[in-house]
Amino acid sequence: MKAVLFQGGKVAVVEKPLPLAGPDEALIRTAMAGICSTDRELLAGYHDFAGIPGHEFVGTVVQARARPDLVGRRVIADINCGCGTCAWCLTGDPRHCPERTTLGIQGRDGAFAEYLSVPLRNLHLTDGSLATEEAVFAEPLAAALEVGQQVHLRGQDRVVVLGDGSLGILIALSLRLSCPRLLLCGRYPEKLRVAEAQGVETRLMQPGREATDICRELGYFDVVVEATGRADGLASALELARPEGTVVVKTTSREPSALSSSKIVVKELTIVGSRCGDLELALSFLKNRWIDVKPLIEAIYPFAHFDEAWHHAGRRGTLKVLVSFE
Amino acid sequence: MKAVLFQGGKVAVVEKPLPLAGPDEALIRTAMAGICSTDRELLAGYHDFAGIPGHEFVGTVVQARARPDLVGRRVIADINCGCGTCAWCLTGDPRHCPERTTLGIQGRDGAFAEYLSVPLRNLHLTDGSLATEEAVFAEPLAAALEVGQQVHLRGQDRVVVLGDGSLGILIALSLRLSCPRLLLCGRYPEKLRVAEAQGVETRLMQPGREATDICRELGYFDVVVEATGRADGLASALELARPEGTVVVKTTSREPSALSSSKIVVKELTIVGSRCGDLELALSFLKNRWIDVKPLIEAIYPFAHFDEAWHHAGRRGTLKVLVSFE
Repeated sequence: MKAVLFQGGKVAVVEKPLPLAGPDEALIRTAMAGICSTDRELLAGYHDFAGIPGHEFVGTVVQARARPDLVGRRVIADINCGCGTCAWCLTGDPRHCPERTTLGIQGRDGAFAEYLSVPLRNLHLTDGSLATEEAVFAEPLAAALEVGQQVHLRGQDRVVVLGDGSLGILIALSLRLSCPRLLLCGRYPEKLRVAEAQGVETRLMQPGREATDICRELGYFDVVVEATGRADGLASALELARPEGTVVVKTTSREPSALSSSKIVVKELTIVGSRCGDLELALSFLKNRWIDVKPLIEAIYPFAHFDEAWHHAGRRGTLKVLVSFE
Repeated sequence: MKAVLFQGGKVAVVEKPLPLAGPDEALIRTAMAGICSTDRELLAGYHDFAGIPGHEFVGTVVQARARPDLVGRRVIADINCGCGTCAWCLTGDPRHCPERTTLGIQGRDGAFAEYLSVPLRNLHLTDGSLATEEAVFAEPLAAALEVGQQVHLRGQDRVVVLGDGSLGILIALSLRLSCPRLLLCGRYPEKLRVAEAQGVETRLMQPGREATDICRELGYFDVVVEATGRADGLASALELARPEGTVVVKTTSREPSALSSSKIVVKELTIVGSRCGDLELALSFLKNRWIDVKPLIEAIYPFAHFDEAWHHAGRRGTLKVLVSFE
């Protein structure tokens, strides 16, 4: 099969043998995959990843020895593959299993390939009402919804989301159902318009002392979600939060943020790190059309043009670039 | 009166007029005051403080026009003085009042002087069962107890406290009532022994990769309390916390910590900034003898020898240095 390989900081499309699916795994033919900024971080050295990247995908089961009924079904998958026997796995949350592998991120090949193998227990069915290019958003949407799983959001909360990348917009679109007064701040008018079109209030944020200006004009926020993807985003987030407020951190920057702990202590802030979420919850949002992810699609490239897709995804101000295998 | 003055990075004992107590304030004759590492940070520029420092104290009311019944009573005081009319103050928590002044820390003279004035609503009576040198610990003990006010501690939680300064030891002594498996890590065997003598398990922690070694040997902790007073303490704390664990930050270092947000995100940690606490809760601990603070006293100097007290408090590895005015 053809597969994208990250190795030594380089991207190459190579010929690889079909992956072997273990007895508790399914072999999946990739239908569509999304390029995420985490993929760019991996290429730059995050997690020392070497292998086939890609963790946002939709595919069709072509082989599943223990579950032959799944063959031919359209699926997405939880990307964290746990050991199945540790305390985390036994309580149904392999995201923190110390032995875990993560599809296309850590210790396991991902979906930028014609086929991939995935544990059966990670699969979720998507066939029926969802288009492929909608289902492919389930993974980042689940990560967006994770914020509300960790922090008890109430209708009257003043929430600000920093960052107008795909993740920031998905967070704004989905948390707005809980918090109507939500504000999305970003640097790209055309990206902010995607959120505005679905009713999100937005504000253009310039680099520099903008956080101070926002506080002066709008006051503090109860909850600040930091999804800028930049190391300096955290300092702005701490500034915007009210005393005893909550800052949710989504950015996984390799570059360290310089943070003076007195900011956290004096305001008695709570900072919550937030990662992957619940795919069934995301599928429920997509199937019920509570948010529309299609306007986030910047471009869809055939897999044969992966190079172009990769370069397009790397341009500043780009929303979601998808790769189609069908 | 004689008073200590911080100005332009220098400490001086000067002659000052008696403070004027407003109609809702009490004039207090200082009996005893404690030197805190925050005082050293103030001198070095924290909060741009210029004035009389000192926020850990016990005194006697000598004038209180609106409450003449208080004259002659022994008191301690909440150090945050709110406006009395904002939302924070109206809910009884002036600690985050945006207009607040803070005794000896921000915008208001403190207790390193023969007299100070304090709002009546800030006063707590201590006379009766408590010795002066015990009551003077109420303020730092309240700050220690604040950890349990913010984080729901359960008996089976594995808790580690980093830092064997006075605050770290007070945290360990007081949280151990909720969490018997608590571990205190510090750099000074003689200070750790003060906590050991009251039943706290301790461990000597060397600078460097010690956090990794502790994790390898003892596993992760549910709750990590960072009270090292050093900018690099936060990184160790993040390393010691289990996935989805909690890190409580007490250090108010001016020096920024370099922090990579991916550590917080991947483990989905919760970081909680923690400041001042509830004096009545602290007094209850002291009056009931649930902990003994006297072994934390390194030395008591008469106010006339404030210079010596200040230098003693600044030595590495020093516990609490007190100044007596009586």
